[in-house]
Amino acid sequence: MGAHSSDLSTSASPTEEPSGTGDSSEMALVAYDHPGVSDLFAVLAYGEISAFYRLAEDARMAPSMQGRVALASMAAAEMNHFETVVGALSERGVDVYTAMDPFVRALDEYHASTNPSTWMEALVKAYVGDGIAADFYREIAHTLDPRVAGIVREVLAETGHSEFVVHEVAVRVQESSQDKARLMLWGRRLLGEAITQAQHVLAQRESLTDLVIAVSGDLNGVAALFDRMQEQHSKRMRVLGLV
Amino acid sequence: MGAHSSDLSTSASPTEEPSGTGDSSEMALVAYDHPGVSDLFAVLAYGEISAFYRLAEDARMAPSMQGRVALASMAAAEMNHFETVVGALSERGVDVYTAMDPFVRALDEYHASTNPSTWMEALVKAYVGDGIAADFYREIAHTLDPRVAGIVREVLAETGHSEFVVHEVAVRVQESSQDKARLMLWGRRLLGEAITQAQHVLAQRESLTDLVIAVSGDLNGVAALFDRMQEQHSKRMRVLGLV
Repeated sequence: MGAHSSDLSTSASPTEEPSGTGDSSEMALVAYDHPGVSDLFAVLAYGEISAFYRLAEDARMAPSMQGRVALASMAAAEMNHFETVVGALSERGVDVYTAMDPFVRALDEYHASTNPSTWMEALVKAYVGDGIAADFYREIAHTLDPRVAGIVREVLAETGHSEFVVHEVAVRVQESSQDKARLMLWGRRLLGEAITQAQHVLAQRESLTDLVIAVSGDLNGVAALFDRMQEQHSKRMRVLGLV
Repeated sequence: MGAHSSDLSTSASPTEEPSGTGDSSEMALVAYDHPGVSDLFAVLAYGEISAFYRLAEDARMAPSMQGRVALASMAAAEMNHFETVVGALSERGVDVYTAMDPFVRALDEYHASTNPSTWMEALVKAYVGDGIAADFYREIAHTLDPRVAGIVREVLAETGHSEFVVHEVAVRVQESSQDKARLMLWGRRLLGEAITQAQHVLAQRESLTDLVIAVSGDLNGVAALFDRMQEQHSKRMRVLGLV
């Protein structure tokens, strides 16, 4: 789940701190030992694994060796991040396999419901799907304990493999307005399915919901967080020429 | 193509320098700009890519999340090594895609002719197949220019993901003498196919053959090199309990 566009990180700056968390003289941080933190790492961990296998699978549609290599490199970056999260969970005394278990279904369903049928759809999914996850984590990272936030930022660090994707998609979109229209709908569907599955996860995992509410201030803050994610998604679609 | 067993590196020590290269007061090194070096890097590069996709594919047979993760981690290590080789080729002014092209067929044929039909076969292939490649490169690394040898060693560095494989296979082999017998044959086939494809590559690429002969001293040296690889393979089979 690499972050793909440096301009997207602005929304995570402390100046845009959501209101409602100002109940102490300092920034109100979510404690290192908040039970939701292990859940957060566990979703990240399985997110990396499932993204790895989807990228490896989708690469079969690549029309060129360059395409195969680009997706393989993105997949490898996911696994490198996975190792980071395993380390963080292990420091908390948590076994990654047990911790991931509750999130397998939601993430598998996200991938099953957004199975690309063309190479272009695979590229847009690799770029946009990752970006959605990165936005979510970046949104919440600034109110997490610095040790936790550090791990989250490391895992979502720019991997530098997305230039290929942006270029390929932007070229195709300029060539074909039909492909452009299709890929715009596809992008919308990716966001919709991601939000649907995120809501399933939150409904199921109280500790994670607690964490997201603590980070956002209150339920209005959660709604505002999802709004900002929608805006970031639109920016990303613009980068691909999908406007 | 990670190296999997530190005891295998002994055969590459300078004390076992093949005879026939003593035509200078120093160790006779293959020059940095020998045309075979780019070929060598190119085979390494496509070896990493093809291994990545085979590991990702074979992981479908994994009976557990641990197994899926182990193969994904091995696959990711291949891609990290690929990046190293791309850098080395690029320093030589060589485009990796053009350079890999002549080797795609032989490596694809190796994988097609050794398509695992069980999870155990997949594990043995991941371990033994990588080891065979690592042996070959380690055998020749010590007579290469230090800059070239450094890249080769970095790419074949121990990745630490093979413990899982060794443990899983060793347990199964102790439990079932039938599986043991099958896997012993399977290991032999992996070596045989690797040698067959290596010979195809050498027959096709004169510059690479020149390099291997330069490294080995003469044709007898090449034969001795293949003999040592056979010995290393036997050691590796022993580590898996396949004796």
